[in-house]
Amino acid sequence: MSPKDLINALRAFLPAEAVLHETEDLRPYECDGLSAYRKTPMIVVLPESEAQVARILQLCHATQTPLVARGAGTGLSGGALPHAEGILMSLAKLNQILEIDPLARTARVQPGVRNLAISDAAKPYGLYYAPDPSSQIACSIGGNVAENSGGVHCLKYGLTVHNILKLRLLTIDGEHHEIGGDGLDSPGFDLLALMTGSEGMLGIVTEITVKLMPIPEKAQLVMAAFDDIQKAGNAVANVIAAGIIPAGMEMMDKITIHAVEEFLHAGYDLNAQAILLCESDGTTEEVADEIERINAIMKTSGATSVSTSRDETERLRFWAGRKAAFPAAGRVSPDYYCMDGTIPRKHLATVLSGIETLSEEYGLRCMNVFHAGDGNLHPLILYDANTPGELEKTEEFGGKILEMCIQAGGTITGEHGVGMEKINQMCVQFKSSELDIFHGVKSAFDPQGLLNPGKAVPTLHRCAELGAMHVHSGSERFPDLPRF
Amino acid sequence: MSPKDLINALRAFLPAEAVLHETEDLRPYECDGLSAYRKTPMIVVLPESEAQVARILQLCHATQTPLVARGAGTGLSGGALPHAEGILMSLAKLNQILEIDPLARTARVQPGVRNLAISDAAKPYGLYYAPDPSSQIACSIGGNVAENSGGVHCLKYGLTVHNILKLRLLTIDGEHHEIGGDGLDSPGFDLLALMTGSEGMLGIVTEITVKLMPIPEKAQLVMAAFDDIQKAGNAVANVIAAGIIPAGMEMMDKITIHAVEEFLHAGYDLNAQAILLCESDGTTEEVADEIERINAIMKTSGATSVSTSRDETERLRFWAGRKAAFPAAGRVSPDYYCMDGTIPRKHLATVLSGIETLSEEYGLRCMNVFHAGDGNLHPLILYDANTPGELEKTEEFGGKILEMCIQAGGTITGEHGVGMEKINQMCVQFKSSELDIFHGVKSAFDPQGLLNPGKAVPTLHRCAELGAMHVHSGSERFPDLPRF
Repeated sequence: MSPKDLINALRAFLPAEAVLHETEDLRPYECDGLSAYRKTPMIVVLPESEAQVARILQLCHATQTPLVARGAGTGLSGGALPHAEGILMSLAKLNQILEIDPLARTARVQPGVRNLAISDAAKPYGLYYAPDPSSQIACSIGGNVAENSGGVHCLKYGLTVHNILKLRLLTIDGEHHEIGGDGLDSPGFDLLALMTGSEGMLGIVTEITVKLMPIPEKAQLVMAAFDDIQKAGNAVANVIAAGIIPAGMEMMDKITIHAVEEFLHAGYDLNAQAILLCESDGTTEEVADEIERINAIMKTSGATSVSTSRDETERLRFWAGRKAAFPAAGRVSPDYYCMDGTIPRKHLATVLSGIETLSEEYGLRCMNVFHAGDGNLHPLILYDANTPGELEKTEEFGGKILEMCIQAGGTITGEHGVGMEKINQMCVQFKSSELDIFHGVKSAFDPQGLLNPGKAVPTLHRCAELGAMHVHSGSERFPDLPRF
Repeated sequence: MSPKDLINALRAFLPAEAVLHETEDLRPYECDGLSAYRKTPMIVVLPESEAQVARILQLCHATQTPLVARGAGTGLSGGALPHAEGILMSLAKLNQILEIDPLARTARVQPGVRNLAISDAAKPYGLYYAPDPSSQIACSIGGNVAENSGGVHCLKYGLTVHNILKLRLLTIDGEHHEIGGDGLDSPGFDLLALMTGSEGMLGIVTEITVKLMPIPEKAQLVMAAFDDIQKAGNAVANVIAAGIIPAGMEMMDKITIHAVEEFLHAGYDLNAQAILLCESDGTTEEVADEIERINAIMKTSGATSVSTSRDETERLRFWAGRKAAFPAAGRVSPDYYCMDGTIPRKHLATVLSGIETLSEEYGLRCMNVFHAGDGNLHPLILYDANTPGELEKTEEFGGKILEMCIQAGGTITGEHGVGMEKINQMCVQFKSSELDIFHGVKSAFDPQGLLNPGKAVPTLHRCAELGAMHVHSGSERFPDLPRF
């Protein structure tokens, strides 16, 4: 169907302002948080109800038109990058909190609701929604489901998939389905988990029932400085070995410490090679006990200084630096590229030194901020998009970091998605027969491949063209990278 | 291929004692824990290595022979019921604990390892494996993965899917795959969750990496008696509403209390209409604080008596009755049928009174034991298989209970599987387009449908023949059942 006919067909059931097609109206939808990739969609639609979503899907289905769904557009892997011959559907207007059930400790919400808005609405009941991506003030819960988002507290409270109970979704034919349930388990295959993190490839979520948690009575934060990143890595291991599951455990390297300290004066030690933030939450008694143990471990692990937040203001000030790492990167460099990979905790120091070697090799600085507790790295490669060739060099550097993560026995995503960004690394992470299973699953939901085409799961053809080779952890594919 | 040729082909790579085909050798494999269903397999194989498993699969694949995998055979839904024209593969001999990593807090084990053996092996490191099905002394971790098993502690610690990190599995073509990873998230669709609870329909798991948890410093149990089951249900709600997540919260009705008390003298109040067991675990301070709050809630909720375990011996004695509910049922009745359904907590009292009505209608006694915290019911229907027609009546009664669970907004499984037992109720729980998605997923892994055929997901044809009709919660399909 021609763009014009499609627009007319959409206007038959959508108000004019919900169907955008003029270039200047389409521009805001060109990219998501991964702004290095841009594409103009053919049409943008802004449905306000599930019924409208169903009709849009039916139209795409009938006309074989690709459809890309978009939440708040804060994703960092290009999952919401538009399709040039397709419709981009923003779910921003489906933004109602439909129900809060304090007894069941659940909230039923539409996908366009902001992550933090759920906790705000649950607060009067002493409850909150645990996953807290750093974009939580802006990102939508629908996007969180699509990307299976994490956050600094996911070490203790889990990712999105661990914090949702039910989804209402529409498949490409416009048919609605309810998956999951109020109980812990559901009969049949676990479609709830399958859907979570599926990056808009299987269906469109129109309603989400999330779990709510009791707001902890108290939270307190230990900040420890180290003169050696290896010692900081050992401190992480020692905390875990002591049987403590911190509410969050974050590490920053020297370049990050300097960037954020200059930016907002969180009180970080500028002589440190690494700073570790380790939070405890729970009842007052529990926190007091755990904080004492964490303090002792930091000292025996060789911290040069250890401070404990004395009140809520100080706790938030200690966190402020970590939370501002991304904007701080934006201050010290014209552009930055945020990576996301996971490695077994024991390889932290080796991988960090590998990143340092690559940084010198590529002549690009790299800030390291990470969820140390779960081995989730966020290297921020600093570059200048206006310097010809620097973006390409950055992408290559980033690709090497991800491949090093695989080689260390880790994975190419921690809490972000694959999207467009890591599609080539998927050829490295998985072998053909595994990609075949992914395609088979996709096809069970969307046989014509109309939902978010080209994202998340590469075609075997693409992998073959790339000459990419599946790598097993510990293999010899990257002789120049550190051994594990 | 003829049975004889198959046996010869198997003997080419398996020792003679690992290929069983004489009737008396096959008998022990006729059924799993759901002994009402029995079938003799054509051949039983007992591989000892992943390589042997791969060759068995390749042979089944090449000869189009159905294959049913079996763990310890303790499952209660007939998931390991053999196929008369197929091979039954016992994984009992793959029983090695391959690695315990106290720093990563993981154990890598083969599928035949018993659930409790993992905790025993982890104990020297102060760690344990949290999910504790009541069969944990006998059931295998491979079976736990196939059924996504729970246990009394899953309210706080989650089901199997929440406690595993990685699976090594073989698809029907004998190809091996590794899914999941050391981190919280993995790229691509969540095959780890998809595999967990897939009842041997998608692949054969040969290695499992489980999470280990620090053994809590202390555990203490509150036992509260109520003269009214509704009050006990409200007490459950009040505990949850107070922001407490107990380590376990179990309820027993009067008939269960009497059956277990006569059996092993746990000290239960024989005048009670319901007994609630509510456990707290954690640090000494945390437990002291939580137990005090639980005690207060039980009293304000109208408990006629409340006791708190004074030491470990007493705690285990209080639990003993609950844990012996199944054998106790076996003492008061020649046979019993253990159901498993989940309902929203708020409908506990209504569903229980619905079960009572059905019990009178069918003239069959029913004991109610359940994981009250997560609304997971285990009605035990007492019957006598030697009375003609009584098994059929029991199955019909059980079916009605499950349909009532769906109508209350719940599901037909809590922590057991679908297997053979609940395959007809799947037609009620899901609509055709949803079953189609399940079949599509199955087909992505096992296009010829050789793995555990006829289980877990009914064909549309079967549903049509049954005349079963998909029911939405709150619908009018069962006018004789209580309204929600």
